[in-house]
Amino acid sequence: MSGLRGKVVIAQGGGPTAVINQSLVGAVLEARKFPDVTRVWGARHGVRGIVNQHFIDLSEATTHNLERVAQTPSSALGSTRDKPDAEYCQNILNVFKKHEVRYFFYIGGNDSSDTVRIVGEYAAKEGYDLRAVHIPKTVDNDLPITDHCPGYPSAARFVASAFAGANADNMALQGVYIAIIMGRHAGWLTAASALARQHDDDGPHLIYLPERQFSIERYLADIDRLYKRHSRCIVAISEGVWANRDAKGKEIPLAADLMRKAGREPEVDAHGNVQLSGGALADELAATVQQQLGIKRVRSDTFGYLQRSFAGVVSDVDAREAREVGEKAVHYACGRYESGSVVIKRVGDYAVRYELADVKAIAAKTRHMPDEFINAEGNHVTEAFRHYLRPLLGSDRPVLERLWAPAVKFGD
Amino acid sequence: MSGLRGKVVIAQGGGPTAVINQSLVGAVLEARKFPDVTRVWGARHGVRGIVNQHFIDLSEATTHNLERVAQTPSSALGSTRDKPDAEYCQNILNVFKKHEVRYFFYIGGNDSSDTVRIVGEYAAKEGYDLRAVHIPKTVDNDLPITDHCPGYPSAARFVASAFAGANADNMALQGVYIAIIMGRHAGWLTAASALARQHDDDGPHLIYLPERQFSIERYLADIDRLYKRHSRCIVAISEGVWANRDAKGKEIPLAADLMRKAGREPEVDAHGNVQLSGGALADELAATVQQQLGIKRVRSDTFGYLQRSFAGVVSDVDAREAREVGEKAVHYACGRYESGSVVIKRVGDYAVRYELADVKAIAAKTRHMPDEFINAEGNHVTEAFRHYLRPLLGSDRPVLERLWAPAVKFGD
Repeated sequence: MSGLRGKVVIAQGGGPTAVINQSLVGAVLEARKFPDVTRVWGARHGVRGIVNQHFIDLSEATTHNLERVAQTPSSALGSTRDKPDAEYCQNILNVFKKHEVRYFFYIGGNDSSDTVRIVGEYAAKEGYDLRAVHIPKTVDNDLPITDHCPGYPSAARFVASAFAGANADNMALQGVYIAIIMGRHAGWLTAASALARQHDDDGPHLIYLPERQFSIERYLADIDRLYKRHSRCIVAISEGVWANRDAKGKEIPLAADLMRKAGREPEVDAHGNVQLSGGALADELAATVQQQLGIKRVRSDTFGYLQRSFAGVVSDVDAREAREVGEKAVHYACGRYESGSVVIKRVGDYAVRYELADVKAIAAKTRHMPDEFINAEGNHVTEAFRHYLRPLLGSDRPVLERLWAPAVKFGD
Repeated sequence: MSGLRGKVVIAQGGGPTAVINQSLVGAVLEARKFPDVTRVWGARHGVRGIVNQHFIDLSEATTHNLERVAQTPSSALGSTRDKPDAEYCQNILNVFKKHEVRYFFYIGGNDSSDTVRIVGEYAAKEGYDLRAVHIPKTVDNDLPITDHCPGYPSAARFVASAFAGANADNMALQGVYIAIIMGRHAGWLTAASALARQHDDDGPHLIYLPERQFSIERYLADIDRLYKRHSRCIVAISEGVWANRDAKGKEIPLAADLMRKAGREPEVDAHGNVQLSGGALADELAATVQQQLGIKRVRSDTFGYLQRSFAGVVSDVDAREAREVGEKAVHYACGRYESGSVVIKRVGDYAVRYELADVKAIAAKTRHMPDEFINAEGNHVTEAFRHYLRPLLGSDRPVLERLWAPAVKFGD
């Protein structure tokens, strides 16, 4: 097959990352090279821009502008939280047919891959020649098949750098430090805090992931033990513990208690997901340590939105890979006339190849941390996880050195 | 005068900064060159390490170790919140006399400069030859006389980068974004958020500083107006509004209401300062906007401890100046036998000189943002402030570029 002439539409969906525009620019620059591509349109605010026919013509963006956009965090086209239903997907296809769009690229997470799948199926059913490719991104790193998701390494670098600084801070002024990290169902980003450790006694000393049932009693006992050993303790907690449910799907008392105590009902979004960004969880977890363990200096932070779009903390490995998945998506669609989802395959220590996976295998699935990445006690990560993450964080990581000088001895 | 032979003691006090170890290393490396300096001792955890005679011998630290420590955030010697009283200061002097310490360097903020002043006065009274120099640091930038404080520019760079990312995020997924920034009494760090703006419609659209009375009604009206104009709104708020008091020194209802609503009594430290790090203020300010203005997507963050010790976000101008104030402190004390506080004087656009000020003029005083740096409405900063801060943020700031491509027009 050859000569599928028509337009490209590219869009960005879901939460932003630090390198999501690398994928956009990789795809746009590559698509502009194909003679059969008549125009490269960018949809404003994801799928909503498609159904509203709100496009900009990226065929006319300068290369210099695009290269600088690539270095800018967060979706330059705008994003959306819309999760298209059947009718919405049909409308997308109608717009594509109307304007002879033959190539559709959607940069996003699970929900976006599902949209790519449905629109592709509708086109096939109607016999409309369309190539639809999902380009992965998510700071949560929770897509299946791919070794990791573009966007995750830079967010992980932010988290590791934040904990490295917090560890130095906590050594200087001792106490307990607790930080809440993004990740509703999967603990990948929280686990990245482990890469802040350089010396054996560096924090984080404890890491709680949504993959394991959280227990307030266990949490207090862990902190008590480690605080006695180190005179300080640093704790990384996934925001997912807030939404933790017991084996029968019932809300666990901790989350309910904390919410009630903070006097608020959790905000629920269109997909039924609880909004977890509040600072109250950190406040309450800190207050509990103070009250129950009698430790005076207990501090807490909620990293919040900083971790997904901070300007200037980017893994160079992540930037390169995000660019390449965008470029490869165009090779698959415009060069080989294939549809699917681009995945990263790790083929060395450290090297990768890109492949095209069936989008059905990606859509609406969540990849949790595997058991071999979580320690037996369920309160930290393993060496295997460190080995997995280390190469992704990129080069030029911050210097963290301790003074190395003899203590002055008296009384001889 | 010449030939004051004896030891150096250097210590670090108060909250950490990203470049406080540059000052330490600048002083140590320089002091080791003076033949009259018999030893360079570092006190562990500030003044507490002096009275407990807990020293390490920095004469035996390798240059390589010191140079890498200089790049590491947060006080490498450890810090303390102890604020010495008369007896404590006398004990410090007694330790100095016992070990023939002739040069005392204390890197810190207001409280540390006061300790330098008192110990120096006691030594003079007893006729003990001591040179005591305060080396300034504070992310709060609230010391008088000096143009700015080492540590502030790097923290300001963190805040500006965070808002640049948050602005890109908020453009992609529109709504209201509120962030709480450190600064109990002075708004310097909160004001730094203004440097995230590149385009006229970039956030932060509103900046609330502790130098101006905070009004919840005014806050809601401001957001309502700007949200209607931009379909989004980014707000920077100093944590100091939590502790805001009215003209008669009475707690303003907002702070009291918020605290009560969150079900907590504020923690008060040894100096009577209220602990302000909690996330509840941000949660409440966001909930108020949601409820009163009926805006659905309202998000908030509290930057917390990240802004003062994040590993890897450093202004190169700040790193250089922090190094130089440490080095100059030694020139003044060991070369010229003078005591005082090192201050930075701006002598060009941009250039600086270092001078020695009377420590009495520094100690226990707070420098607020001057009126010419705050706009008439009290909800943003002026061009004069931007001009003041811009050169301090250093080089290689993050790239922030918008797509520049024509909209696709239909229906012709």
